[in-house]
Amino acid sequence: MFESAEIGHKLKKSEFQKEEPKLRQALLNVQYRLLEKSKFPVIILVNGVDGAGKGETVNLFNEWMDPRHIHTHAFGASNDAERARPEMWRFWISLPPKGRIGILFGSWYTDPILQRVMGNDGSGEFQQRLSRIRDFERMLVAEGALILKLWFHLSKDAQKTRLKQLSEKKKTAWRVTKEDWKHFKRYDEFVDVCEPALRETSTGEAPWNIIEGSNHEYRSLTAGRLLLAALERRLKAPAKAATATKAPPKSVIVRVDKRDVLNTADYSVKLDRDSYQKQLDKLQGQLNLLTRHKKMRERSIIMVFEGMDAAGKGSTIRRVTRAMDARFYHVVPIAAPSDEERAQPYLWRFWRHVPPHGHAVIFDRSWYGRVLVERVEKFCTDADWQRGYHEINEFEEQLAEGGAIVAKFWLAISQAEQLKRFKERGTIAHKQFKITDEDWRNRKKWPAYELAVADMIDHTSTDIAQWNVIASNDKPWARVETLKRLVETIEQQL
Amino acid sequence: MFESAEIGHKLKKSEFQKEEPKLRQALLNVQYRLLEKSKFPVIILVNGVDGAGKGETVNLFNEWMDPRHIHTHAFGASNDAERARPEMWRFWISLPPKGRIGILFGSWYTDPILQRVMGNDGSGEFQQRLSRIRDFERMLVAEGALILKLWFHLSKDAQKTRLKQLSEKKKTAWRVTKEDWKHFKRYDEFVDVCEPALRETSTGEAPWNIIEGSNHEYRSLTAGRLLLAALERRLKAPAKAATATKAPPKSVIVRVDKRDVLNTADYSVKLDRDSYQKQLDKLQGQLNLLTRHKKMRERSIIMVFEGMDAAGKGSTIRRVTRAMDARFYHVVPIAAPSDEERAQPYLWRFWRHVPPHGHAVIFDRSWYGRVLVERVEKFCTDADWQRGYHEINEFEEQLAEGGAIVAKFWLAISQAEQLKRFKERGTIAHKQFKITDEDWRNRKKWPAYELAVADMIDHTSTDIAQWNVIASNDKPWARVETLKRLVETIEQQL
Repeated sequence: MFESAEIGHKLKKSEFQKEEPKLRQALLNVQYRLLEKSKFPVIILVNGVDGAGKGETVNLFNEWMDPRHIHTHAFGASNDAERARPEMWRFWISLPPKGRIGILFGSWYTDPILQRVMGNDGSGEFQQRLSRIRDFERMLVAEGALILKLWFHLSKDAQKTRLKQLSEKKKTAWRVTKEDWKHFKRYDEFVDVCEPALRETSTGEAPWNIIEGSNHEYRSLTAGRLLLAALERRLKAPAKAATATKAPPKSVIVRVDKRDVLNTADYSVKLDRDSYQKQLDKLQGQLNLLTRHKKMRERSIIMVFEGMDAAGKGSTIRRVTRAMDARFYHVVPIAAPSDEERAQPYLWRFWRHVPPHGHAVIFDRSWYGRVLVERVEKFCTDADWQRGYHEINEFEEQLAEGGAIVAKFWLAISQAEQLKRFKERGTIAHKQFKITDEDWRNRKKWPAYELAVADMIDHTSTDIAQWNVIASNDKPWARVETLKRLVETIEQQL
Repeated sequence: MFESAEIGHKLKKSEFQKEEPKLRQALLNVQYRLLEKSKFPVIILVNGVDGAGKGETVNLFNEWMDPRHIHTHAFGASNDAERARPEMWRFWISLPPKGRIGILFGSWYTDPILQRVMGNDGSGEFQQRLSRIRDFERMLVAEGALILKLWFHLSKDAQKTRLKQLSEKKKTAWRVTKEDWKHFKRYDEFVDVCEPALRETSTGEAPWNIIEGSNHEYRSLTAGRLLLAALERRLKAPAKAATATKAPPKSVIVRVDKRDVLNTADYSVKLDRDSYQKQLDKLQGQLNLLTRHKKMRERSIIMVFEGMDAAGKGSTIRRVTRAMDARFYHVVPIAAPSDEERAQPYLWRFWRHVPPHGHAVIFDRSWYGRVLVERVEKFCTDADWQRGYHEINEFEEQLAEGGAIVAKFWLAISQAEQLKRFKERGTIAHKQFKITDEDWRNRKKWPAYELAVADMIDHTSTDIAQWNVIASNDKPWARVETLKRLVETIEQQL
């Protein structure tokens, strides 16, 4: 894999000086076109061996282009806020918006490679992390991002020479740390791990570009031209090209008997007033205790509430929040995305609300919008919502690994019950704000929503985060059942 | 001050049970009206003595109203990210957007009071912090916020009884910490500090409401009614009422001789090519060294670039960034605010970019927009930009206290030079994107902008953050001068 990058690539200074101004002008031009169109973000990953010119190249990119529209992130040790969330969180919230260039220096590749070299991760864990990265990058590309992955390489001899050179000069000695020399001693192990890492993550949508780093002129011109070519190709492509990864085969299940989890649910379950109050009090007490459990300091809770209109999400959520201290939880009602959210991948507006350990977030509607309303209303392409299932499972897996307890509730009501509630809302003064024309429109699409819900549950009810389908025609029963399942889920996981 | 709150206020359970449902319904109604209109945010500060029912009240507010549109923040010890920024930063970024309710539990009052009680802050420092709070709240109100300040009080005896009661019951014992008893020992000192704190920060626009906390029913109904009354009053008020704090007298300076810092600047200064390159290299080297200075780990740099169109902000910024490692700085170009930014106080879109220690942020246009373009184009009221000077000075003072080195540059060009550059831009192909009709329109308002600039410099060039007016007709001179002043400013402060 690194053969070509050890042959001693060189470029004459004079040739570089001739080419640089042209490259620079061209880069600046494409950068402004990117900005003006603001159709997609550019994510540049900078990785490779120490001393191979990563920092210099990033600085050159900032010099050649307009640094006002480039955001460079360096990822070192995690801070408090990062350690209390999933590992990928700090990358999620550092992605550039459409029209901008983000340079991730020490990207999501650094830690998996390092942990493997140090022997902290076994081969299985390493493979799993690479596979996760592949999924993540595929998702970013499908969401429209242009990803340019640059790997700066040096042969063992070249790295030694380079580190020595830097150490000897007063001006550059600070750039070589003890850490660098420590890494150098493990050069062979490092390359042995990087080779499969690059191979397995060099995909059609986001291939690696390996650049030999020993010669400044060669390295810089190569990196610059790679960036220019990637940007030009993408700017020329038809608007939808990047996301037009071939639509996967429809993975929805054929239901020859028309039976699904919703229409086979038992909606007759009920709870009388007295049992309701007793059970509610008991369960709220249990939930309260659980949220103050010692282990909760290293865990978080993420609740998802979905359901047809008028299924009682709001009032059920209030029965849950009432059991918790207001300092412990946040409720995030999901409405139309803000313009900052529209400039990011679909999941970004949920990433930003991921709670730290010791806290809970309740999503009133959620990332499942992708496979529900967006699917039914055709707000996204078929390919978009179909890849959604896998992306969502992956997301929830990462939440769980980051210490979150994920509890998902589908509040199910029958069509008849919905009609009854709509009519009530129309007549009760203080409930009128809750019923809109859109609710009536959505109701007409019941069969399409029902299909989407059934598919959603089949695809995303996993060991990590099961769906709880709660029959909700009877509100007391639904509230108690929700609390019961929630308490069980938390108890199991603590 | 606390007399009324020590007389043993009580309410019968039966009366509370009669009133609660009405209050609840009314609160829910106003909350939805608040949300629907989304004209202003509601900030509820919850402070007071331990055991006086602060937590219970916050939980009740969340129970009475729809918790999906309430955001409760509890502020304990600072985390890494907070410690590396100005003290107020964590409050700045936790304010609710328009239409929402934010409950700040342990607000900006907690630390000043605590530090004074513990004797860490002297009387002068304490006064200064109170005065800063007054300014901050005044600004929030002027920006449209409704602030409700609730202080929960208990007499010394009542506090003792309360802490004992809580400690004795199994169910509530966890709520009383050692810290609480430690605080109790200092009850008298605490009250002695709180009294002046409340007195001096109880202003017309944001008065304190003191509530006796010993009786659940009395406390809860009082707090709820205070919130209801505040919300109803504000929702009934005409749209502009809240911000119509009487327009202060125009504080702009009368210039009888028409001379100002711009038209008296010497625009003839020049630098030849050779000296330029030599000095530029030297200064960039110095700047680079400074950014890697040991002391920089506890400091940050905030640069502000302002200037008439075509004054050369972009190209000057590039000479500055070139001297720094891309991992050290971010450039923030200020354009039209996003919808999330529009739902917050004016300064919010700058607050969110305040860098942590060890980093620099370069603002390409800045918070000075308030007293420049917003003033001239009448995007805000006269009162708004006039209060802007003081708010900006206050903001920069807090940045400086938080460890930031603030360096501000006005790149000054003559009208004739601007015309020349506009014409050039129109003819040079790769510069055409830089000239728009708006630039020509702005040019016609030169006198109004000049007046605004002169006023701005007079009001906001302070010991903490001086303005550097850089004659920029000659670009090489301007770049070198900017770097020179920047290097000087940083050297002085390290």
